[in-house]
Amino acid sequence: MVGASALIAIDWGTSRARAYWLDAHGQVQHEKSAPLGVLSVPPGGFAAALAELLAGGPGDRAPMLACGMVGSRQGWIEAPYRECPADADAIASALSPVPGTRLAIVPGLICRDSDGAPDVMRGEETQVLGALEAGAHAATARVVVLPGTHSKWTVVREERIETFATFLTGEMYAVLREHSILGRLASAGDDPVALEAGVRRSLATNAELSHDLFSARTFALTGELAPGAVGDYLSGLLLGAELAAGRRWLHRQRALGESVLLIGDPELCERYRRGFAIAGLEATVGSPHAAARGLWRLARCARIVDPVLP
Amino acid sequence: MVGASALIAIDWGTSRARAYWLDAHGQVQHEKSAPLGVLSVPPGGFAAALAELLAGGPGDRAPMLACGMVGSRQGWIEAPYRECPADADAIASALSPVPGTRLAIVPGLICRDSDGAPDVMRGEETQVLGALEAGAHAATARVVVLPGTHSKWTVVREERIETFATFLTGEMYAVLREHSILGRLASAGDDPVALEAGVRRSLATNAELSHDLFSARTFALTGELAPGAVGDYLSGLLLGAELAAGRRWLHRQRALGESVLLIGDPELCERYRRGFAIAGLEATVGSPHAAARGLWRLARCARIVDPVLP
Repeated sequence: MVGASALIAIDWGTSRARAYWLDAHGQVQHEKSAPLGVLSVPPGGFAAALAELLAGGPGDRAPMLACGMVGSRQGWIEAPYRECPADADAIASALSPVPGTRLAIVPGLICRDSDGAPDVMRGEETQVLGALEAGAHAATARVVVLPGTHSKWTVVREERIETFATFLTGEMYAVLREHSILGRLASAGDDPVALEAGVRRSLATNAELSHDLFSARTFALTGELAPGAVGDYLSGLLLGAELAAGRRWLHRQRALGESVLLIGDPELCERYRRGFAIAGLEATVGSPHAAARGLWRLARCARIVDPVLP
Repeated sequence: MVGASALIAIDWGTSRARAYWLDAHGQVQHEKSAPLGVLSVPPGGFAAALAELLAGGPGDRAPMLACGMVGSRQGWIEAPYRECPADADAIASALSPVPGTRLAIVPGLICRDSDGAPDVMRGEETQVLGALEAGAHAATARVVVLPGTHSKWTVVREERIETFATFLTGEMYAVLREHSILGRLASAGDDPVALEAGVRRSLATNAELSHDLFSARTFALTGELAPGAVGDYLSGLLLGAELAAGRRWLHRQRALGESVLLIGDPELCERYRRGFAIAGLEATVGSPHAAARGLWRLARCARIVDPVLP
């Protein structure tokens, strides 16, 4: 049995929701994950979804803080984007309380790239704050990369999330593998050599993706790529394209050479770590629960929990 | 009524088959198109599909020549790829007769790019030969671009198809529009300004597609792109990426600056012509029936029809 929680932290994304019951030291007492993502909740159904998510948990009356797509236009209430750069205090000062509940929602972040296009994130800002301890590395730039359906590359300077860039790597892989001719010759398999070949090709060609992708078909046609290797080669091409473009982006942000921290699914992070090594970039994989730790940090800044607790 | 045909020319692709009855001067007397593409023909069903395609036509006993995916591993019989460079005589010497019929199939072409990846085409080689008159421009390089699901860029020198490159532009557009988050905010519309904005962005960023594509979502999120403009902006990003990579490819082939001939669907060719103009490249749209004229040219080289005819 656990004592009363100080905070229920919720990482509420597109396809899943994860609740963490945190004690007065911010430690995870209990956690629960459910396929209650924003896309599966019907209009008006968020209160019921939250009750379902918390059912069976410690059942106390702690304050709740959520991050992720639950704060989007398709979510419970819209928590408007905050402009970058933003630090934990700036984000904590812009929480959106959900009327009639003990829940508040963390805003997403918006920035503009050098060509004027907007970029957005929701949930990753909280993971970044959780992955980087408050006060540590304050003087130097940190690069945090969050692999996923939409990979995010962020630059943190003086504890502020300065800017970031999104890469559609995961989503492109999924739709091309499932719906394009490139998946037709592929079968299930795990082939690190093919992955590396794909990464190297994209790095060498500087990621001319719309041409390079066709080689996932032609190498299969000529028999140079076994059916079980096609998927990893395709994944490598897309990862290499992200690395080629991301490396240039880091250079433009004067952050190339800073060590990279990878956070997210451990297997995917390890795949990215290998990719970064091929590209000549050092990357380490961060510890899990970044969202829970980020929500704890924001809750203390916002005085939802006692800020003088350890 | 038409007289006996000298040749029945068939452009037999993945989704459609088109038959052209040609007179002794190579002129189209009659044509017919049917949704009898290779993917819709069951194993062993090609003879029946051919009979269905020709039913209702002039009904003579002319020789037949087909190009396209009908000669692939998934087609009627496999007509093995010919290596590039290849001229009309080389291709005509490698036709694959279909046993028990009056039909022969044109081989596809294979080449290697500078990074060693194979590239292939089936059907486009015939269109290129049909689009470029025999004997004309023999001394100079010609660039022929065939927009489509898989766009092909070809360089022709001294009447030989020297090399080519494939871009998955059309297929990427289709799968991203239909199956990714990028299509979710899009509605039907025709917006040449959004198309141009997409092309210009990809040309400016040098086509960092996996990042740039996300702007089709974020511009829609911020309201800077109307729902009816999202599709054309996405199309422009992908066209711009093809133009950026294609321009570099032409440079490597020492063919940048040669005028570009576009052949294929007239509306798509016009879209590409505008894209080429934005990229500072001159392109003209070729006349239709390139496949029929290419098959006629190959049939004469192969002496399937009398080579001394005009």
